[in-house]
Amino acid sequence: MVGAGFAGLAAAKQLGGSGFDVTVVDRHNYHLFQPLLYQVATAGLSPADIASPIRSILSRYKNIRVVLANVSGVSIDEGAVIAEERQIPYDVLILATGAQHAYFGHDEWSVHAPGLKRVDDATYLRRRILVAFERAESEVDEARRQALLTFVVVGGGPTGVEMAGAIAELARKALAADFRHIDPRNARIILVQAAPRLLPTFPEPLSQRAKFALERLGVDVRLNQSVTSCDSEGVRLGEVPIEAATIVWAAGVMASPAGRWLQAEVDNAGRVRVGEDLTLPGHPEIFVIGDTANCIGNDGRPLAGVAPVAKQQGEFVGQLLKARAAGRTLPRFRYRDFGAMATIGRKSAVAQLGPIRLHGLPAWLLWSAAHIYYLIGFRNRITVVLNWAWNYVTFQRGTRLITGLSGSRVEDMAAPAPMEPDGVGNLNR
Amino acid sequence: MVGAGFAGLAAAKQLGGSGFDVTVVDRHNYHLFQPLLYQVATAGLSPADIASPIRSILSRYKNIRVVLANVSGVSIDEGAVIAEERQIPYDVLILATGAQHAYFGHDEWSVHAPGLKRVDDATYLRRRILVAFERAESEVDEARRQALLTFVVVGGGPTGVEMAGAIAELARKALAADFRHIDPRNARIILVQAAPRLLPTFPEPLSQRAKFALERLGVDVRLNQSVTSCDSEGVRLGEVPIEAATIVWAAGVMASPAGRWLQAEVDNAGRVRVGEDLTLPGHPEIFVIGDTANCIGNDGRPLAGVAPVAKQQGEFVGQLLKARAAGRTLPRFRYRDFGAMATIGRKSAVAQLGPIRLHGLPAWLLWSAAHIYYLIGFRNRITVVLNWAWNYVTFQRGTRLITGLSGSRVEDMAAPAPMEPDGVGNLNR
Repeated sequence: MVGAGFAGLAAAKQLGGSGFDVTVVDRHNYHLFQPLLYQVATAGLSPADIASPIRSILSRYKNIRVVLANVSGVSIDEGAVIAEERQIPYDVLILATGAQHAYFGHDEWSVHAPGLKRVDDATYLRRRILVAFERAESEVDEARRQALLTFVVVGGGPTGVEMAGAIAELARKALAADFRHIDPRNARIILVQAAPRLLPTFPEPLSQRAKFALERLGVDVRLNQSVTSCDSEGVRLGEVPIEAATIVWAAGVMASPAGRWLQAEVDNAGRVRVGEDLTLPGHPEIFVIGDTANCIGNDGRPLAGVAPVAKQQGEFVGQLLKARAAGRTLPRFRYRDFGAMATIGRKSAVAQLGPIRLHGLPAWLLWSAAHIYYLIGFRNRITVVLNWAWNYVTFQRGTRLITGLSGSRVEDMAAPAPMEPDGVGNLNR
Repeated sequence: MVGAGFAGLAAAKQLGGSGFDVTVVDRHNYHLFQPLLYQVATAGLSPADIASPIRSILSRYKNIRVVLANVSGVSIDEGAVIAEERQIPYDVLILATGAQHAYFGHDEWSVHAPGLKRVDDATYLRRRILVAFERAESEVDEARRQALLTFVVVGGGPTGVEMAGAIAELARKALAADFRHIDPRNARIILVQAAPRLLPTFPEPLSQRAKFALERLGVDVRLNQSVTSCDSEGVRLGEVPIEAATIVWAAGVMASPAGRWLQAEVDNAGRVRVGEDLTLPGHPEIFVIGDTANCIGNDGRPLAGVAPVAKQQGEFVGQLLKARAAGRTLPRFRYRDFGAMATIGRKSAVAQLGPIRLHGLPAWLLWSAAHIYYLIGFRNRITVVLNWAWNYVTFQRGTRLITGLSGSRVEDMAAPAPMEPDGVGNLNR
């Protein structure tokens, strides 16, 4: 099994204690609770609050072995995964290698507009955001200072909405009193969405609610606008240039290169087209699940790359393998859609649960409860609750550390390693 | 004021709300509680648990301005600090720029034997230690596996003792059940001390206690032995080679280059010799405090580079400046020595408080209480308590994340930037 994100971990847990001999390969030693990564990027939580060592999570299953390695390919003929110098043989292969941000043919933008998929991305963004305020404080040129205090978030899906809301709260609350020459409350936060509304996968009224809530936080929401260029000066929306020192990319994802490893048919987001049982057509021994898979849902459209889909697919594969071993079969994979949520800020979120739509405080309470519940590991759960309670009461942010650089100049910062677009390495989701 | 470690922050707080116009310059945006840095390096705490933003700490003092910048020199003639592109003028200068690890003429060892002074050092060491276990798990060569499971800590002062104890507990408890091919409990932890006893600044019986306690944890304590070479294969103690993948340098510190900035007289550890009022001789407007200063104590010997000395010196300078402004003077600086403590592991520490000597559980409880009390910021205090309680009950370590690298190979890891031995940058302590 390759990848210990939501999908891979769910499958591993299903197979834990069974007669199968399971090897979990991941390039990271931890499982990352990606839905809260934006809180690391905005100094609300520490990386360790939302990540747990894979070995710890799986240590009680003696039939599971964990390997920390970069997977670079699959040899279907030999039945082996290629991981660094060695090959790991398999009888059954589960690929759950996730997705990475994509710049749709503009990879050169990645330097200026970092995305948010990995821990290192989040600490890098945190550094960029905090350093922008620091540089603004000592900048004497007014136009330059304004650019340093301008934050552009590209993409109006859940990640973009959450990032824009969190940056706005950071500037308006946590940092408000800490500077002498600038007023962080004057920071401009611009959320750019190419579609006619935010959160396009949500019901229309909730998109409206999200927009209002963001605007109340002072976020400038630009609908129907696309980024046409991105450089160290800022972005261009159509023909209009916006000077901004900080750009956050939340506009698109691309599946990991598992499709290329398998030489399989992929959709335009690089996802492998799988059958009803989540196997690669013609290969009942190869499963592709999670963000890496294009799996057709009940409505005839591909399922979204969200945690609940990944988890349910992982569980399904585990159950299917156990059924096969017992000589039985299972009906096809069916996704049970319990709804979707996105948070905007303190006491503000939108949620859809079947026919029920919530916004404001009730949605936020539900969002908080659900995320705490799903956070893996008891310790992380209480630390997160405590941090949130603290942030809620004080408006402070606990993890405002600028680490990983020796000076205060943005140019000095080491960006995280690029995400290997070319078939090298599986992604921890 | 340059440096916001214990000394600089204590001085700033004394001057907060006074008539002075105070500028605090630091290369980091946070104050680091260095005595607990070893817990970050051994996956017990997150960096944010032991660091607080300087701006937050000082935000209520409207007469204090915080500047995030690298200081590279002082122009005494012009009365200005040189920080990156600009000069920051001063009437009174307080230098509290700390110390860095020193390899005593063997700077080439720093690659193989990283020290522990900054947040980036700690996360780098955490990565090295955790990756060593991961690589051992997949290593087929027995000798190589043994080298990967060998950890050498160089230096038997408090940092060395604490690191050796913490690595031993990590291996014997937290990681014990998580691997399939290796038994982390078989890891060798070797503590090398050139002097005839551990903790030479403590009373002799406590050195004995510390040695016994470490040996009970399975640490191999080597007294009267010196490291004669250090490379990627391991260390050499005299003529005896020890193969080890992980070497931790806790053997020596060197003051930051403030002495060179001032062209002042320094001792052999690079510390500026200061007068009884902590000023540079001949310059009543320049104070040097904390680890950067060589200040003669009541017993005629230079005071040690520890937090209580730094704090008291900072407070003294703040009081002296306020007294001067009021037309008064203060008697010379006198260090009130309340004792010293070092922790070895769970329920195990040594402490000396004047005539009282404690070891074992009582010392550990005292150590815990004192460190929690002194941790800056209410939030950090409760998070740390919670983490400790959790680690205590479960023997687990909460922050076992290998971050900042894309693969599992040690060679891929980016070491933190070197510590600028040559006059560039002030050190956050």
